[in-house]
Amino acid sequence: MIVVQKYGGSSVADTDRIKRVAERVVQVRRDGHDVVVVVSAMGKTTDQLIRQAEEVSGIPPARELDMLLTAGERISMSLLAMAMHELGYTARSLTGSQAGIITDTTHGKARIIDITPGRINSALAEGHVVIVAGFQGVSRDSKDVTTLGRGGSDTTAVALAGALGASVCEIYTDVDGVYTADPRIVSTARKLQRVSHEEMLELAACGAKVLQVRSVEYARNHHVAVHVRSSFSYGEGTWVQDESEANMEQAVISGVAHDTGEGKLVIRRVPDKPGVAARIFTALAEANINIDMIVQNVSEDGTTDISCTVPLADGPRADLLLTALLPEIGAEGILFDSDVAKVSLVGAGMKTHPGVAAAMFSALSDAGVNIEMISTSTIRISVVVRAAEVSTAVQAVHDRFNLGGEVET
Amino acid sequence: MIVVQKYGGSSVADTDRIKRVAERVVQVRRDGHDVVVVVSAMGKTTDQLIRQAEEVSGIPPARELDMLLTAGERISMSLLAMAMHELGYTARSLTGSQAGIITDTTHGKARIIDITPGRINSALAEGHVVIVAGFQGVSRDSKDVTTLGRGGSDTTAVALAGALGASVCEIYTDVDGVYTADPRIVSTARKLQRVSHEEMLELAACGAKVLQVRSVEYARNHHVAVHVRSSFSYGEGTWVQDESEANMEQAVISGVAHDTGEGKLVIRRVPDKPGVAARIFTALAEANINIDMIVQNVSEDGTTDISCTVPLADGPRADLLLTALLPEIGAEGILFDSDVAKVSLVGAGMKTHPGVAAAMFSALSDAGVNIEMISTSTIRISVVVRAAEVSTAVQAVHDRFNLGGEVET
Repeated sequence: MIVVQKYGGSSVADTDRIKRVAERVVQVRRDGHDVVVVVSAMGKTTDQLIRQAEEVSGIPPARELDMLLTAGERISMSLLAMAMHELGYTARSLTGSQAGIITDTTHGKARIIDITPGRINSALAEGHVVIVAGFQGVSRDSKDVTTLGRGGSDTTAVALAGALGASVCEIYTDVDGVYTADPRIVSTARKLQRVSHEEMLELAACGAKVLQVRSVEYARNHHVAVHVRSSFSYGEGTWVQDESEANMEQAVISGVAHDTGEGKLVIRRVPDKPGVAARIFTALAEANINIDMIVQNVSEDGTTDISCTVPLADGPRADLLLTALLPEIGAEGILFDSDVAKVSLVGAGMKTHPGVAAAMFSALSDAGVNIEMISTSTIRISVVVRAAEVSTAVQAVHDRFNLGGEVET
Repeated sequence: MIVVQKYGGSSVADTDRIKRVAERVVQVRRDGHDVVVVVSAMGKTTDQLIRQAEEVSGIPPARELDMLLTAGERISMSLLAMAMHELGYTARSLTGSQAGIITDTTHGKARIIDITPGRINSALAEGHVVIVAGFQGVSRDSKDVTTLGRGGSDTTAVALAGALGASVCEIYTDVDGVYTADPRIVSTARKLQRVSHEEMLELAACGAKVLQVRSVEYARNHHVAVHVRSSFSYGEGTWVQDESEANMEQAVISGVAHDTGEGKLVIRRVPDKPGVAARIFTALAEANINIDMIVQNVSEDGTTDISCTVPLADGPRADLLLTALLPEIGAEGILFDSDVAKVSLVGAGMKTHPGVAAAMFSALSDAGVNIEMISTSTIRISVVVRAAEVSTAVQAVHDRFNLGGEVET
């Protein structure tokens, strides 16, 4: 069986930690498995490289920024290969390009379009542990080095696990699994043993930082079983699996996620006529601004307010862009409010259990938290509240659905 | 015309210096030339990476060490490309592999066996400045990343200049050219305007650190004109050229080089019979110990002393190796003396000017310096003296041949 393991930056932050990772890898190898290890750059390396780029260039060209950043994984992966040798195991480190991670040409945010794992397979066949640089690939068209964006190493690992038919993709991180809520906010938050791909996708999209959204998407589409666990302990973490396998225990609610990284953008008194919303969101999309929730109320006096959430960093740019668009669309004004938070309740059982939304809203109301926006999917309910009330809100919702406890039953 | 420029680690030591290098490159570009820039890793990056390797591994596997070290040039080259963009010029950084530097598989000391500059040529044709990672290539057989060894960036630059038919290969360094002697020892040392490939080869092999021996060898074999100059000034440096062009001014002597990095190994009372010397030097070669001067005196009593110089770092190993061989070859003993220095006089005119050796030896004698070993080539005379007397020796020889002065006439 092939096991794919991914170690994040904090797991390989210095040479001592790299040695500890090597020891973990050896254990799996001793059990007779073939091992493919995906590594991130050491600790804060990527941030340091970005800082250097900013010292020489106002807006670093994307191709060169990718070339620069990929140096980070090159260092961690070759050091890990050396540490493996020191323990008596041969290892081969491979860059994204050498490992056959083929992407499109979108520098800084490339998408994997193919995996050609020829070199990985031959290295495994020769008995080596294979170590692959996370977060990077090579573009099919330009043959240039690309990166997958922040957290892209998760995606590398999941994609490799899928392409290699691995039995599991283990994601090692500094927390020991996926929790029913952020334990720093809710002391009784409970570690989940299993969660479905769909639920994890919603949790990740709603602010749970343990896994990157795109990697979960990839895992779902390619049916890859992901095991999220801590690189500092040997306990079981959380399994992220296909719904059929994950939900044998079928809890109605998986957890509460929150996100304080977005702001609320309101376009006031938009004329209620066809094509206006399309014009607004096309403009935002063309500026590469990611929109999350979109809420439009029922029109009353022939105008309506359209609200959406955007990443805080993009807020001022979105504000500027839409203000310039005001005359064309005939709206009254733009408000950008950075002082909000999103709280989301996620659970696959929601589909078949009515009343979840009502219970959530009343929990918030009982806690004195005002709801500013609401948006739902089949397995998620998200609300926007004041940023200052995020802890109260998360705690109240977590309590109402009795999500706490020591271990999931 | 294509100009190849190479900037060493001290020229790109930090982001400010990288910006200054970008400005220099722009000037050449403005003059209408195509420019290919070869860069080393920033400052002490390579040393830091080696230190990290040593933290995880006693003897780092060579393949992985090469993978690690090549991260250094990746960082400097992409930062330089960004700095070029900032000045309004587009640039493409290319790894050794992307630039078509094809080598053998000797990790850590790979030799360039081919250059396939397809990507360089198309990037130049598109109007980009091309920036190539020095010191690295890709092996033809294993497709693994290789390094050319310390100072390998000089070789990268010269090899590219040859393959691209460049008009000149400019080697930027922290000194402004090749001198008649080390200016730290001889205050009247004079910068040479021109020197032939052969002379430079002897000077480099005898301790002049300004150019790496292999790069000069490559330049000679491929008739590449090299211009050694300072990255901190705009003055002319020293041209290293084919003899026909370099020696229009035909000085008898080019300069005095010295080397304190070698020790003297004496094998005492070796039986004077065929095959013994071959046995000794085969053993050293198999242990990958580089021998420089070899001196054997005329045999008297059926035995002879064989002396050679070896790098100081290899001395103890060579001593051990030959001591084990003593019974087989029937010699009396091994002496290793690390307290020596080599002083060499180099000049293409020597060939046609008798009496140079005599003048050099009498200069040393007049200065009270004892000669322990002598070895000559057609354009070089080297002597081994006590390490403590190296400055006296260099100064005396430099004076005797009137090499000093402000500018070469």
